[in-house]
Amino acid sequence: MGKKYSEEHKVAYYECDVTGQMTQPAMLAVAIEISEAQSAALGRDSAFVQSLGVTWIITNYQITYNRLPKALEKITVSTMAMEYNKFFCYRNFWLTDELGNELVKIEAVFALMSLETRKMAAVAEEIIAPYGSEKVKKIRRYPKLTKVEGDSYQPYRVRFYDIDNNHHVNNAVYFTWIFDVLGYDFLASHTPKSTAIRFEKEVEYGNQVESHYQIVTREDGAIETRHEIRCGDVVSCEANIVWEAN
Amino acid sequence: MGKKYSEEHKVAYYECDVTGQMTQPAMLAVAIEISEAQSAALGRDSAFVQSLGVTWIITNYQITYNRLPKALEKITVSTMAMEYNKFFCYRNFWLTDELGNELVKIEAVFALMSLETRKMAAVAEEIIAPYGSEKVKKIRRYPKLTKVEGDSYQPYRVRFYDIDNNHHVNNAVYFTWIFDVLGYDFLASHTPKSTAIRFEKEVEYGNQVESHYQIVTREDGAIETRHEIRCGDVVSCEANIVWEAN
Repeated sequence: MGKKYSEEHKVAYYECDVTGQMTQPAMLAVAIEISEAQSAALGRDSAFVQSLGVTWIITNYQITYNRLPKALEKITVSTMAMEYNKFFCYRNFWLTDELGNELVKIEAVFALMSLETRKMAAVAEEIIAPYGSEKVKKIRRYPKLTKVEGDSYQPYRVRFYDIDNNHHVNNAVYFTWIFDVLGYDFLASHTPKSTAIRFEKEVEYGNQVESHYQIVTREDGAIETRHEIRCGDVVSCEANIVWEAN
Repeated sequence: MGKKYSEEHKVAYYECDVTGQMTQPAMLAVAIEISEAQSAALGRDSAFVQSLGVTWIITNYQITYNRLPKALEKITVSTMAMEYNKFFCYRNFWLTDELGNELVKIEAVFALMSLETRKMAAVAEEIIAPYGSEKVKKIRRYPKLTKVEGDSYQPYRVRFYDIDNNHHVNNAVYFTWIFDVLGYDFLASHTPKSTAIRFEKEVEYGNQVESHYQIVTREDGAIETRHEIRCGDVVSCEANIVWEAN
Protein backbone atom coordinates (compact mmCIF):
# COMPACT_ATOMS: atom_id res chain seq x y z
CA MET A 1 0.00 0.00 0.00
CA GLY A 2 1.15 3.49 -0.79
CA LYS A 3 0.97 6.93 0.79
CA LYS A 4 -2.36 8.14 2.08
CA TYR A 5 -3.59 11.62 1.27
CA SER A 6 -6.57 13.25 2.99
CA GLU A 7 -8.51 16.48 2.90
CA GLU A 8 -11.49 17.66 4.88
CA HIS A 9 -14.61 18.58 2.99
CA LYS A 10 -17.79 20.28 4.16
CA VAL A 11 -20.71 18.93 2.14
CA ALA A 12 -22.52 21.83 0.44
CA TYR A 13 -26.26 21.96 -0.16
CA TYR A 14 -25.58 22.18 -3.88
CA GLU A 15 -23.77 18.84 -3.71
CA CYS A 16 -26.95 17.22 -2.37
CA ASP A 17 -30.20 16.08 -3.92
CA VAL A 18 -33.76 16.55 -2.62
CA THR A 19 -33.10 14.00 0.14
CA GLY A 20 -30.38 16.29 1.56
CA GLN A 21 -27.73 13.63 0.85
CA MET A 22 -24.61 14.01 -1.26
CA THR A 23 -25.10 12.99 -4.88
CA GLN A 24 -22.97 10.31 -6.51
CA PRO A 25 -21.54 12.74 -9.11
CA ALA A 26 -20.52 15.13 -6.30
CA MET A 27 -18.81 12.31 -4.35
CA LEU A 28 -16.85 11.27 -7.43
CA ALA A 29 -15.88 14.84 -8.26
CA VAL A 30 -14.55 15.43 -4.74
CA ALA A 31 -12.67 12.10 -4.78
CA ILE A 32 -10.97 12.83 -8.09
CA GLU A 33 -10.06 16.33 -6.90
CA ILE A 34 -8.27 14.76 -3.90
CA SER A 35 -6.30 12.36 -6.06
CA GLU A 36 -5.25 15.26 -8.30
CA ALA A 37 -4.12 17.15 -5.21
CA GLN A 38 -2.04 14.16 -4.11
CA SER A 39 -0.53 13.85 -7.58
CA ALA A 40 0.38 17.54 -7.62
CA ALA A 41 1.92 17.25 -4.12
CA LEU A 42 4.05 14.35 -5.39
CA GLY A 43 5.14 16.25 -8.51
CA ARG A 44 3.02 14.04 -10.77
CA ASP A 45 0.26 16.37 -11.92
CA SER A 46 -1.48 15.92 -15.26
CA ALA A 47 1.00 18.23 -17.05
CA PHE A 48 3.88 15.97 -15.93
CA VAL A 49 2.03 12.81 -16.96
CA GLN A 50 1.12 14.29 -20.33
CA SER A 51 4.72 15.38 -20.91
CA LEU A 52 5.48 11.63 -21.08
CA GLY A 53 2.91 11.21 -23.86
CA VAL A 54 0.22 9.54 -21.76
CA THR A 55 -2.84 10.45 -19.74
CA TRP A 56 -4.74 8.73 -16.92
CA ILE A 57 -8.04 7.04 -17.64
CA ILE A 58 -10.34 5.26 -15.21
CA THR A 59 -11.70 1.89 -16.31
CA ASN A 60 -13.74 0.71 -13.28
CA TYR A 61 -15.23 1.78 -10.00
CA GLN A 62 -16.56 -0.51 -7.27
CA ILE A 63 -18.38 1.63 -4.73
CA THR A 64 -19.92 0.58 -1.42
CA TYR A 65 -22.08 2.90 0.66
CA ASN A 66 -22.62 2.48 4.41
CA ARG A 67 -24.32 5.85 4.67
CA LEU A 68 -24.45 8.82 2.34
CA PRO A 69 -22.86 12.08 3.54
CA LYS A 70 -25.42 14.74 4.50
CA ALA A 71 -25.65 18.46 3.70
CA LEU A 72 -23.30 20.53 5.90
CA GLU A 73 -21.63 17.38 7.28
CA LYS A 74 -17.85 17.62 7.70
CA ILE A 75 -16.30 14.59 6.06
CA THR A 76 -12.75 13.51 5.36
CA VAL A 77 -11.90 12.35 1.86
CA SER A 78 -8.84 10.10 1.68
CA THR A 79 -7.10 8.29 -1.12
CA MET A 80 -4.30 5.77 -1.42
CA ALA A 81 -2.62 4.03 -4.35
CA MET A 82 -2.97 0.36 -3.28
CA GLU A 83 -0.97 -1.62 -5.83
CA TYR A 84 -0.31 -1.84 -9.55
CA ASN A 85 0.64 -4.30 -12.25
CA LYS A 86 1.84 -3.89 -15.82
CA PHE A 87 -1.27 -2.04 -17.03
CA PHE A 88 -3.49 -1.20 -14.07
CA CYS A 89 -3.20 0.90 -10.93
CA TYR A 90 -5.57 0.20 -8.06
CA ARG A 91 -6.51 3.24 -6.00
CA ASN A 92 -8.98 3.45 -3.13
CA PHE A 93 -10.95 6.40 -1.81
CA TRP A 94 -12.72 6.67 1.53
CA LEU A 95 -15.29 9.18 2.70
CA THR A 96 -15.38 9.12 6.50
CA ASP A 97 -17.42 11.01 9.08
CA GLU A 98 -16.04 13.13 11.94
CA LEU A 99 -15.66 10.05 14.14
CA GLY A 100 -13.71 8.23 11.46
CA ASN A 101 -16.53 5.89 10.45
CA GLU A 102 -16.40 4.83 6.83
CA LEU A 103 -19.36 6.23 4.90
CA VAL A 104 -18.40 5.40 1.34
CA LYS A 105 -15.56 3.38 -0.14
CA ILE A 106 -14.57 3.75 -3.78
CA GLU A 107 -12.20 1.26 -5.40
CA ALA A 108 -10.95 2.62 -8.70
CA VAL A 109 -8.90 1.11 -11.49
CA PHE A 110 -6.66 3.56 -13.35
CA ALA A 111 -4.73 2.95 -16.54
CA LEU A 112 -2.51 5.05 -18.78
CA MET A 113 -3.52 5.82 -22.34
CA SER A 114 -1.13 6.97 -25.06
CA LEU A 115 -2.09 10.45 -26.25
CA GLU A 116 -0.90 9.54 -29.74
CA THR A 117 -2.38 6.10 -30.34
CA ARG A 118 -5.26 6.38 -27.78
CA LYS A 119 -4.29 2.83 -26.75
CA MET A 120 -3.42 1.61 -23.29
CA ALA A 121 0.22 2.10 -22.28
CA ALA A 122 2.26 0.18 -19.70
CA VAL A 123 2.51 1.82 -16.29
CA ALA A 124 5.78 3.80 -16.24
CA GLU A 125 7.89 3.61 -13.06
CA GLU A 126 8.67 7.31 -13.50
CA ILE A 127 5.01 8.15 -12.99
CA ILE A 128 4.08 5.66 -10.32
CA ALA A 129 7.13 5.48 -8.02
CA PRO A 130 6.35 8.50 -5.78
CA TYR A 131 3.00 7.04 -4.70
CA GLY A 132 4.85 4.20 -2.95
CA SER A 133 2.43 1.45 -3.94
CA GLU A 134 3.51 -2.14 -4.48
CA LYS A 135 3.96 -3.79 -7.85
CA VAL A 136 2.05 -7.06 -8.17
CA LYS A 137 1.71 -9.64 -10.93
CA LYS A 138 -1.96 -10.32 -10.44
CA ILE A 139 -4.63 -8.60 -12.51
CA ARG A 140 -7.80 -8.17 -10.46
CA ARG A 141 -10.99 -9.64 -11.85
CA TYR A 142 -14.24 -7.95 -11.00
CA PRO A 143 -17.67 -9.62 -11.01
CA LYS A 144 -19.23 -9.62 -14.47
CA LEU A 145 -21.86 -6.96 -14.97
CA THR A 146 -25.36 -8.09 -15.85
CA LYS A 147 -26.62 -6.63 -19.12
CA VAL A 148 -29.73 -4.51 -19.54
CA GLU A 149 -32.77 -6.23 -21.02
CA GLY A 150 -35.62 -4.31 -22.61
CA ASP A 151 -35.50 -0.93 -24.24
CA SER A 152 -36.14 1.73 -21.60
CA TYR A 153 -33.92 4.77 -22.04
CA GLN A 154 -33.64 8.54 -22.13
CA PRO A 155 -31.41 10.56 -24.43
CA TYR A 156 -28.76 12.93 -23.01
CA ARG A 157 -26.56 15.33 -24.91
CA VAL A 158 -22.97 15.94 -23.79
CA ARG A 159 -22.90 19.54 -22.58
CA PHE A 160 -20.12 22.13 -22.39
CA TYR A 161 -19.89 21.86 -18.61
CA ASP A 162 -19.60 18.06 -18.88
CA ILE A 163 -16.11 18.51 -20.34
CA ASP A 164 -13.32 18.88 -17.81
CA ASN A 165 -10.03 20.68 -17.77
CA ASN A 166 -8.41 17.75 -19.62
CA HIS A 167 -11.00 18.06 -22.41
CA HIS A 168 -12.64 14.76 -21.48
CA VAL A 169 -16.18 14.05 -20.43
CA ASN A 170 -15.72 13.91 -16.68
CA ASN A 171 -16.36 10.48 -15.17
CA ALA A 172 -18.87 11.95 -12.75
CA VAL A 173 -21.09 12.92 -15.71
CA TYR A 174 -21.80 9.27 -16.57
CA PHE A 175 -23.22 8.89 -13.07
CA THR A 176 -25.56 11.81 -13.76
CA TRP A 177 -26.98 10.04 -16.81
CA ILE A 178 -27.15 6.67 -15.03
CA PHE A 179 -28.90 7.99 -11.93
CA ASP A 180 -31.15 10.61 -13.56
CA VAL A 181 -32.82 8.13 -15.89
CA LEU A 182 -34.29 6.26 -12.89
CA GLY A 183 -36.58 9.20 -12.19
CA TYR A 184 -37.64 11.23 -9.17
CA ASP A 185 -39.94 8.68 -7.53
CA PHE A 186 -37.32 5.92 -7.57
CA LEU A 187 -34.40 8.13 -6.54
CA ALA A 188 -36.25 9.85 -3.70
CA SER A 189 -37.33 6.49 -2.24
CA HIS A 190 -34.18 4.35 -2.64
CA THR A 191 -30.59 4.56 -1.38
CA PRO A 192 -27.65 2.95 -3.20
CA LYS A 193 -25.75 0.20 -1.34
CA SER A 194 -23.19 -0.63 -4.02
CA THR A 195 -22.26 0.39 -7.54
CA ALA A 196 -20.11 -1.45 -10.07
CA ILE A 197 -19.31 0.56 -13.18
CA ARG A 198 -17.06 -0.05 -16.15
CA PHE A 199 -16.01 2.55 -18.72
CA GLU A 200 -15.43 1.18 -22.19
CA LYS A 201 -15.34 3.94 -24.76
CA GLU A 202 -15.18 7.69 -24.30
CA VAL A 203 -17.98 9.90 -25.52
CA GLU A 204 -17.27 13.37 -26.81
CA TYR A 205 -18.68 16.88 -26.67
CA GLY A 206 -21.83 17.19 -28.75
CA ASN A 207 -22.51 13.43 -28.75
CA GLN A 208 -26.05 12.36 -28.01
CA VAL A 209 -26.01 9.33 -25.72
CA GLU A 210 -28.78 6.99 -24.65
CA SER A 211 -28.98 6.03 -20.99
CA HIS A 212 -30.53 2.54 -21.03
CA TYR A 213 -31.74 0.99 -17.81
CA GLN A 214 -33.68 -1.84 -16.24
CA ILE A 215 -35.00 -2.09 -12.67
CA VAL A 216 -35.16 -5.65 -11.32
CA THR A 217 -35.91 -7.35 -8.02
CA ARG A 218 -33.33 -10.13 -7.76
CA GLU A 219 -34.03 -13.62 -6.43
CA ASP A 220 -32.41 -12.64 -3.13
CA GLY A 221 -34.94 -9.80 -2.80
CA ALA A 222 -32.45 -6.99 -3.51
CA ILE A 223 -33.39 -4.21 -5.92
CA GLU A 224 -30.86 -3.92 -8.71
CA THR A 225 -30.69 -1.45 -11.56
CA ARG A 226 -28.71 -2.27 -14.69
CA HIS A 227 -27.35 0.39 -16.98
CA GLU A 228 -25.74 0.96 -20.34
CA ILE A 229 -24.70 4.27 -21.82
CA ARG A 230 -24.80 3.87 -25.58
CA CYS A 231 -23.54 6.24 -28.23
CA GLY A 232 -24.93 5.01 -31.51
CA ASP A 233 -24.17 1.26 -31.59
CA VAL A 234 -21.27 1.57 -29.16
CA VAL A 235 -21.62 0.80 -25.46
CA SER A 236 -19.50 3.39 -23.69
CA CYS A 237 -20.28 2.51 -20.08
CA GLU A 238 -22.02 -0.26 -18.12
CA ALA A 239 -23.15 -0.32 -14.49
CA ASN A 240 -25.04 -2.39 -11.93
CA ILE A 241 -26.34 -0.68 -8.80
CA VAL A 242 -27.86 -2.38 -5.76
CA TRP A 243 -30.43 -0.34 -3.81
CA GLU A 244 -32.30 -0.38 -0.54
CA ALA A 245 -35.83 1.02 -0.26
CA ASN A 246 -35.95 3.94 2.23
CA MET B 1 -26.03 48.19 4.81
CA GLY B 2 -26.24 45.09 6.92
CA LYS B 3 -23.88 42.54 8.39
CA LYS B 4 -21.22 41.05 6.15
CA TYR B 5 -20.62 37.32 6.11
CA SER B 6 -17.60 35.70 4.43
CA GLU B 7 -16.14 32.27 3.84
CA GLU B 8 -13.01 31.16 2.07
CA HIS B 9 -13.37 28.83 -0.87
CA LYS B 10 -10.77 26.92 -2.83
CA VAL B 11 -11.91 26.63 -6.44
CA ALA B 12 -12.05 22.95 -7.44
CA TYR B 13 -11.23 21.64 -10.90
CA TYR B 14 -14.77 20.27 -11.14
CA GLU B 15 -16.12 23.81 -10.66
CA CYS B 16 -14.21 24.91 -13.76
CA ASP B 17 -14.76 24.53 -17.49
CA VAL B 18 -12.22 23.64 -20.20
CA THR B 19 -10.64 27.09 -19.86
CA GLY B 20 -9.71 26.28 -16.23
CA GLN B 21 -11.98 29.09 -14.99
CA MET B 22 -14.87 28.80 -12.57
CA THR B 23 -18.23 28.27 -14.26
CA GLN B 24 -21.13 30.63 -13.73
CA PRO B 25 -23.35 27.88 -12.21
CA ALA B 26 -20.56 27.03 -9.73
CA MET B 27 -20.13 30.70 -8.73
CA LEU B 28 -23.87 31.04 -8.11
CA ALA B 29 -24.02 27.79 -6.15
CA VAL B 30 -21.18 28.89 -3.88
CA ALA B 31 -22.74 32.34 -3.41
CA ILE B 32 -26.14 30.93 -2.42
CA GLU B 33 -24.47 28.45 -0.05
CA ILE B 34 -22.81 31.42 1.73
CA SER B 35 -26.08 33.30 2.11
CA GLU B 36 -27.70 30.17 3.56
CA ALA B 37 -24.82 29.88 6.01
CA GLN B 38 -25.34 33.49 7.08
CA SER B 39 -29.08 32.92 7.46
CA ALA B 40 -28.47 29.84 9.60
CA ALA B 41 -25.94 31.75 11.74
CA LEU B 42 -28.59 34.45 12.31
CA GLY B 43 -31.29 31.90 13.18
CA ARG B 44 -33.13 32.52 9.94
CA ASP B 45 -32.59 29.29 8.02
CA SER B 46 -35.12 28.05 5.47
CA ALA B 47 -36.98 25.97 8.07
CA PHE B 48 -37.58 29.16 10.12
CA VAL B 49 -38.68 31.13 7.07
CA GLN B 50 -41.01 28.35 5.94
CA SER B 51 -42.52 28.09 9.43
CA LEU B 52 -43.91 31.58 8.72
CA GLY B 53 -45.62 30.29 5.58
CA VAL B 54 -43.21 31.84 3.08
CA THR B 55 -40.06 30.98 1.15
CA TRP B 56 -37.32 33.05 -0.48
CA ILE B 57 -37.25 33.44 -4.23
CA ILE B 58 -34.72 35.31 -6.35
CA THR B 59 -36.10 37.57 -9.04
CA ASN B 60 -32.97 39.17 -10.55
CA TYR B 61 -29.21 39.02 -10.70
CA GLN B 62 -26.88 41.72 -12.06
CA ILE B 63 -23.40 40.25 -12.29
CA THR B 64 -20.16 41.97 -13.23
CA TYR B 65 -16.93 40.09 -13.83
CA ASN B 66 -13.48 41.69 -13.54
CA ARG B 67 -11.75 38.32 -13.79
CA LEU B 68 -13.04 34.77 -13.40
CA PRO B 69 -11.67 32.70 -10.49
CA LYS B 70 -9.22 30.01 -11.60
CA ALA B 71 -8.88 26.33 -10.68
CA LEU B 72 -7.19 25.89 -7.26
CA GLU B 73 -7.36 29.64 -6.55
CA LYS B 74 -8.26 30.56 -2.98
CA ILE B 75 -11.07 33.08 -3.07
CA THR B 76 -13.23 34.72 -0.44
CA VAL B 77 -16.97 34.72 -0.97
CA SER B 78 -18.80 37.46 0.93
CA THR B 79 -22.40 38.51 1.16
CA MET B 80 -24.31 41.40 2.69
CA ALA B 81 -27.98 42.33 2.83
CA MET B 82 -27.84 45.91 1.46
CA GLU B 83 -31.38 47.28 1.91
CA TYR B 84 -35.00 46.31 1.52
CA ASN B 85 -38.41 47.78 0.82
CA LYS B 86 -41.94 46.43 1.17
CA PHE B 87 -41.45 43.54 -1.26
CA PHE B 88 -37.79 43.29 -2.22
CA CYS B 89 -34.51 42.59 -0.44
CA TYR B 90 -31.28 43.66 -2.11
CA ARG B 91 -28.30 41.44 -1.34
CA ASN B 92 -24.79 41.64 -2.79
CA PHE B 93 -22.15 38.95 -3.15
CA TRP B 94 -18.46 39.46 -3.81
CA LEU B 95 -15.85 36.97 -4.95
CA THR B 96 -12.42 38.36 -4.11
CA ASP B 97 -8.88 37.09 -4.62
CA GLU B 98 -6.25 36.58 -1.92
CA LEU B 99 -5.20 40.24 -2.15
CA GLY B 100 -8.78 41.41 -1.70
CA ASN B 101 -9.31 42.39 -5.33
CA GLU B 102 -12.89 42.08 -6.50
CA LEU B 103 -13.19 39.35 -9.13
CA VAL B 104 -16.96 39.04 -9.45
CA LYS B 105 -19.82 41.06 -7.98
CA ILE B 106 -23.35 39.68 -7.87
CA GLU B 107 -26.28 41.94 -7.04
CA ALA B 108 -29.34 39.86 -6.23
CA VAL B 109 -32.96 40.73 -5.61
CA PHE B 110 -34.77 38.45 -3.18
CA ALA B 111 -38.49 38.35 -2.44
CA LEU B 112 -40.74 36.23 -0.25
CA MET B 113 -43.41 34.01 -1.78
CA SER B 114 -46.37 32.60 0.12
CA LEU B 115 -46.21 28.80 0.21
CA GLU B 116 -50.01 28.67 0.10
CA THR B 117 -50.91 31.16 -2.63
CA ARG B 118 -47.52 31.07 -4.49
CA LYS B 119 -47.88 34.89 -4.64
CA MET B 120 -45.37 37.44 -3.43
CA ALA B 121 -45.62 38.32 0.25
CA ALA B 122 -44.52 41.50 2.03
CA VAL B 123 -41.10 41.32 3.69
CA ALA B 124 -41.70 40.41 7.36
CA GLU B 125 -39.64 42.28 10.00
CA GLU B 126 -39.33 39.03 11.92
CA ILE B 127 -37.38 37.51 9.05
CA ILE B 128 -35.29 40.47 7.97
CA ALA B 129 -34.36 42.24 11.22
CA PRO B 130 -31.26 40.15 12.16
CA TYR B 131 -29.50 40.98 8.88
CA GLY B 132 -29.30 44.64 9.97
CA SER B 133 -30.07 46.10 6.54
CA GLU B 134 -31.86 49.40 6.08
CA LYS B 135 -35.49 49.77 5.06
CA VAL B 136 -35.96 52.10 2.12
CA LYS B 137 -38.99 53.32 0.18
CA LYS B 138 -37.43 53.14 -3.24
CA ILE B 139 -37.92 50.16 -5.53
CA ARG B 140 -34.84 49.70 -7.71
CA ARG B 141 -35.33 49.67 -11.46
CA TYR B 142 -33.00 47.62 -13.57
CA PRO B 143 -32.25 48.22 -17.26
CA LYS B 144 -34.81 46.57 -19.51
CA LEU B 145 -33.64 43.32 -21.05
CA THR B 146 -33.50 43.09 -24.82
CA LYS B 147 -35.62 40.27 -26.23
CA VAL B 148 -34.35 37.42 -28.36
CA GLU B 149 -35.05 37.63 -32.08
CA GLY B 150 -34.97 34.60 -34.35
CA ASP B 151 -35.62 31.02 -33.43
CA SER B 152 -32.33 29.42 -32.38
CA TYR B 153 -32.70 27.12 -29.40
CA GLN B 154 -31.88 23.78 -27.80
CA PRO B 155 -34.24 21.72 -25.64
CA TYR B 156 -33.26 20.81 -22.05
CA ARG B 157 -35.11 18.54 -19.66
CA VAL B 158 -35.20 19.34 -15.95
CA ARG B 159 -33.21 16.56 -14.28
CA PHE B 160 -33.34 15.05 -10.80
CA TYR B 161 -30.09 16.73 -9.75
CA ASP B 162 -31.42 20.10 -10.94
CA ILE B 163 -33.86 20.09 -8.01
CA ASP B 164 -32.46 21.40 -4.74
CA ASN B 165 -33.10 20.65 -1.11
CA ASN B 166 -36.09 23.03 -1.18
CA HIS B 167 -37.62 21.07 -4.07
CA HIS B 168 -37.06 23.94 -6.51
CA VAL B 169 -35.06 24.03 -9.70
CA ASN B 170 -31.88 25.62 -8.40
CA ASN B 171 -31.20 29.07 -9.86
CA ALA B 172 -27.76 27.97 -10.99
CA VAL B 173 -29.39 25.46 -13.36
CA TYR B 174 -30.87 28.23 -15.53
CA PHE B 175 -27.32 29.45 -16.08
CA THR B 176 -26.35 25.98 -17.29
CA TRP B 177 -29.06 26.10 -19.96
CA ILE B 178 -28.26 29.71 -20.89
CA PHE B 179 -24.52 29.20 -21.23
CA ASP B 180 -24.51 25.68 -22.71
CA VAL B 181 -26.67 26.62 -25.67
CA LEU B 182 -23.95 29.00 -26.92
CA GLY B 183 -21.75 26.01 -27.76
CA TYR B 184 -18.14 25.00 -27.25
CA ASP B 185 -16.52 27.30 -29.81
CA PHE B 186 -18.19 30.43 -28.48
CA LEU B 187 -17.72 29.59 -24.79
CA ALA B 188 -14.07 28.60 -25.15
CA SER B 189 -13.25 31.85 -26.96
CA HIS B 190 -15.27 34.43 -24.99
CA THR B 191 -15.34 35.65 -21.38
CA PRO B 192 -18.42 37.20 -19.78
CA LYS B 193 -18.13 40.81 -18.60
CA SER B 194 -21.67 41.26 -17.26
CA THR B 195 -24.90 39.32 -16.92
CA ALA B 196 -28.40 40.60 -16.28
CA ILE B 197 -30.96 37.91 -15.60
CA ARG B 198 -34.59 37.96 -14.52
CA PHE B 199 -36.56 34.97 -13.28
CA GLU B 200 -40.24 35.09 -14.11
CA LYS B 201 -41.89 31.74 -13.67
CA GLU B 202 -40.56 28.59 -12.05
CA VAL B 203 -40.09 25.44 -14.08
CA GLU B 204 -40.60 22.04 -12.48
CA TYR B 205 -39.06 18.59 -12.45
CA GLY B 206 -39.74 16.74 -15.68
CA ASN B 207 -40.49 19.92 -17.66
CA GLN B 208 -38.86 20.23 -21.04
CA VAL B 209 -37.60 23.77 -21.56
CA GLU B 210 -36.28 25.54 -24.62
CA SER B 211 -33.16 27.67 -24.24
CA HIS B 212 -33.56 30.36 -26.92
CA TYR B 213 -30.65 32.60 -27.76
CA GLN B 214 -29.28 35.19 -30.13
CA ILE B 215 -25.68 36.35 -30.54
CA VAL B 216 -25.32 40.00 -31.63
CA THR B 217 -22.55 42.52 -32.10
CA ARG B 218 -23.95 45.75 -30.71
CA GLU B 219 -23.43 49.18 -32.28
CA ASP B 220 -20.77 49.94 -29.66
CA GLY B 221 -18.85 46.85 -30.81
CA ALA B 222 -19.61 44.73 -27.75
CA ILE B 223 -20.73 41.13 -28.20
CA GLU B 224 -24.04 40.52 -26.49
CA THR B 225 -26.03 37.32 -26.16
CA ARG B 226 -29.74 37.43 -25.44
CA HIS B 227 -31.58 34.58 -23.82
CA GLU B 228 -35.03 33.29 -23.00
CA ILE B 229 -35.86 30.05 -21.22
CA ARG B 230 -39.30 29.01 -22.38
CA CYS B 231 -41.52 26.27 -21.06
CA GLY B 232 -44.31 25.83 -23.56
CA ASP B 233 -45.63 29.35 -24.23
CA VAL B 234 -44.39 30.70 -20.93
CA VAL B 235 -41.12 32.64 -20.60
CA SER B 236 -39.59 31.51 -17.33
CA CYS B 237 -36.31 33.40 -17.47
CA GLU B 238 -34.65 36.15 -19.55
CA ALA B 239 -31.03 37.21 -19.69
CA ASN B 240 -28.59 39.48 -21.50
CA ILE B 241 -24.87 38.76 -21.29
CA VAL B 242 -22.04 40.99 -22.51
CA TRP B 243 -18.85 39.21 -23.60
CA GLU B 244 -15.27 39.92 -24.50
CA ALA B 245 -13.41 37.85 -27.09
CA ASN B 246 -10.37 36.10 -25.53
